[in-house]
Amino acid sequence: MSTAGQVIRCRAAVAWEAGKPLVIEEVEVAPPQEMEVRVKILFTSLCHTDVYFWEAKGQTPMFPRIFGHEAGGIVESVGEGVIDLKPGDHVLPVFTGECKECKPCKSEESNICDLLRINTDRGVMLNDGKSRFSIKGKPIYHFVGTSTFSEYTVTHVGSLAKINPAAPLDKVCVLSCGISTGLGATLNVAKPKKGSTVAIFGLGAVGLAAAEGARIAGASRIIGVDLNSKRFEEAKKFGVTEFVNPKEHDKPVQEVIAEMTDGGVDRSVECTGSINAMISAFECVHDGWGVAVLVGVPNKDDAFKTHPMNFLNERTLTGTFFGNYRPRSDLPAVVEKYMNKELELEKFITHSVPFAQINKAFEYMLKGDGLRCIIRMDA
Amino acid sequence: MSTAGQVIRCRAAVAWEAGKPLVIEEVEVAPPQEMEVRVKILFTSLCHTDVYFWEAKGQTPMFPRIFGHEAGGIVESVGEGVIDLKPGDHVLPVFTGECKECKPCKSEESNICDLLRINTDRGVMLNDGKSRFSIKGKPIYHFVGTSTFSEYTVTHVGSLAKINPAAPLDKVCVLSCGISTGLGATLNVAKPKKGSTVAIFGLGAVGLAAAEGARIAGASRIIGVDLNSKRFEEAKKFGVTEFVNPKEHDKPVQEVIAEMTDGGVDRSVECTGSINAMISAFECVHDGWGVAVLVGVPNKDDAFKTHPMNFLNERTLTGTFFGNYRPRSDLPAVVEKYMNKELELEKFITHSVPFAQINKAFEYMLKGDGLRCIIRMDA
Repeated sequence: MSTAGQVIRCRAAVAWEAGKPLVIEEVEVAPPQEMEVRVKILFTSLCHTDVYFWEAKGQTPMFPRIFGHEAGGIVESVGEGVIDLKPGDHVLPVFTGECKECKPCKSEESNICDLLRINTDRGVMLNDGKSRFSIKGKPIYHFVGTSTFSEYTVTHVGSLAKINPAAPLDKVCVLSCGISTGLGATLNVAKPKKGSTVAIFGLGAVGLAAAEGARIAGASRIIGVDLNSKRFEEAKKFGVTEFVNPKEHDKPVQEVIAEMTDGGVDRSVECTGSINAMISAFECVHDGWGVAVLVGVPNKDDAFKTHPMNFLNERTLTGTFFGNYRPRSDLPAVVEKYMNKELELEKFITHSVPFAQINKAFEYMLKGDGLRCIIRMDA
Repeated sequence: MSTAGQVIRCRAAVAWEAGKPLVIEEVEVAPPQEMEVRVKILFTSLCHTDVYFWEAKGQTPMFPRIFGHEAGGIVESVGEGVIDLKPGDHVLPVFTGECKECKPCKSEESNICDLLRINTDRGVMLNDGKSRFSIKGKPIYHFVGTSTFSEYTVTHVGSLAKINPAAPLDKVCVLSCGISTGLGATLNVAKPKKGSTVAIFGLGAVGLAAAEGARIAGASRIIGVDLNSKRFEEAKKFGVTEFVNPKEHDKPVQEVIAEMTDGGVDRSVECTGSINAMISAFECVHDGWGVAVLVGVPNKDDAFKTHPMNFLNERTLTGTFFGNYRPRSDLPAVVEKYMNKELELEKFITHSVPFAQINKAFEYMLKGDGLRCIIRMDA
C-alpha cells in the first residue's frame, strides 16, 4: 500500500535538550510539499557537526530537534514540481544543497548555493516555514535540511544527490559530508601533482580523507600533522608516509616541515579548525608555487594572521566548503570512484550500531574512538 | 674597432649618497666574466624601486651605487660560457633572473629563481663577488644585477631577456619591471574571465598595467580604487570604468565594492603595498570564486589579518612577483603583444628626458607627476 500523500509514523532519535542522550520516539512525518522529497533512511553516520550542535555550546540552542546529515536512503515519495527524482531512487542527503537556479549554481565556479546554502539556525522547511516532523502535534525541528536520524525524513529536492542504485548505502553514506569534504579539498582545490609533497593537518576522518585524496593523486610524500601521536599508526592505511607531532618540537611546525622538505611542501590541507594550525598550514608551503587549503571550521573570534610577504612570494591560500563538490552534480561521480575501487571507504568505517543504540555512536565520537560509526536504521 | 675584452669608459649616473641628486660621471666598465654579458643601454626608465633604495630609508645604505633596472639595450660582448646571446642582440635587463638550472626554474610553476632571485643587498657580481664598475679604481656598487643608469652595464646572462630586434626599445624598455608586473598579475595570476568584474587597488603605473590586463582579458567592469581622485581621469584610458576613493566613504571600501557588485568582485589586484588596501582587496572579492592578488610590497612589520571564514567561503588570496613572468622565457611574448597592438605601452610613457637630466625623472616621480619617464642615454 502506498504511503505517498499520507503522514508516516516511524521511529526517530529526538534530541530534547542540549547534550542529553537522544530518545527514540515515534514521530509523524508529513508528506513532502512543493519541491520536497520524503526519503526512507537506511543508514546514517555520525559527524562532528551533529555533536557540535547537539552540545549547543555557543550557538542558539534549538530543541527538540532531529539531527543527522550523513546518510543514504531511498525516495519514498516526491512533492509537486519534483521531476529529477522518483520513488525508489537511491539518494544521499546533503547538508548543503544545489538548486541549479541561483547565480552561484549557474556560475560553475561555486558550490555555495544561494537558496540551499547550509543554515544551522533554520529548523524548518523553506516552503512554508514549518517542520514536517511532529510528536502528537508538537513540531520537532529539522537540522541542516536533512535530519537523517529518523526512519523517514523530508528534504528539499536540491539537498539530495541521486546515486548509482548498485552502490552499497551502508558504505557510500559516509560520502554525504566529512569524507567528501576532505577528499574534495585535496582533489578539487589543492590539486597536488603526481610525485608532489602534501602536508595534512589533523588526522581525523576529514584529514584522512584529504590524505586519501593525496594518495589517489599520486603524492610521493604525505606528511601527517596531529597533536595526538596515537593517530599515526592508523593514518598509515590512508597513505600518510611521515608524521609530525607539534608538541614534540620546540620550533614552529612550519619550520620543522620546511626543513623536512627543502623549503616547504607543495600543498597543505588544514582539517582541524585551529587557527594556529591554519597559520602553520599556510606558512609550511613552498614559495613560488605552494597552495594551502583550509577546511576546518574556525571559532567565531579567530583572526588569521601572517606576513603579507608570504603571499608575495607566490604562496596561495584558499578554503573550501564541502570539498568544492556540488552535491547533485558531483557526488554521483564520487560514488563511482568507490565503485571502481579507486577510492577506499571501508577503512573509514570503524564502528556500526543498530538505531536503538545511536547514543553509542555519540560516545565513540566524544572519546575520539574510531572514525565513522554507521547507524543501521532497520535494526 | 671591437671593444670586446677591454675596459669601456662611458657615462653613468652615480648615486654617491642616499637621497642626493645623481652625478653623471665617467666610469670604467670591466669586460664580462663567465656567464656575464656587457650591454649598451639605449633607454632606461625610472621605477619606484630605484627611488626607494636611493632614499635608503629603512634598508642598509649601499653607496656609491649605480641604480636603474627598467631598460632596453644591445649586447656589446659576452663572457665565457654564454651561448644564448651574442653581440647585437636586443635585450631587456630584468631585476630578477632565470638561470634555467635551479629547482624553481625547472619546476615550470615558479619564476623565483634560486640563483638570480632579486637581492637588493648585493652590490657585486656573483662570479667573483666584485663590481664591474669603477671610477679611478674605486668600485661602484651594482643594483639588483642590472644598473641601467649607465651607458654600458654588465649583467648575468640570466638577467637578460632577448627580444624581437624590431621592437622599439624606447617603448618596450618599460616592460622590464613595473608594467609587466601589473599586467602579469592580472593575466597570469588573477586570470579574470571575459565579462567579469575586477577591482584594482592603486592607480599608479603598476595598477594601471593591471587594469590594462583586465581590459585585454575582456573584463566588463574595472573598478579603480585610489586615495587620490586626481588619478581617475587618466585611468579611464586604461579601461577603468568606475572609481572609488575610500576617503569619500564612511564604511570600509570592501563594503562599498560589495554593494556595487552584488556581493563582491570576481577578481581584485592590490598594487599599493598598503596593508589596509591588501585586506580590503581580499575582503572585496565574491565568495565561492573570488581571487585576490597582492602585488604591492608591504612594510617589514605589516601583518595581514582577516577572519578565516573568508577563506572557507571559497575566496582565494595569492601574490605575485614580477607578474609570474619568467624573464627569459616569457618577456619576449609580452613584447610581441605590444608589436601586435594588443598591449598599449605609449599611454604609460608620460615624460622623456636626456640622460644628463636624469634627476628630473626623480623629481617627476617624487611629485607623483605622470607614470613613466624615459631616459635617453644617447642624449
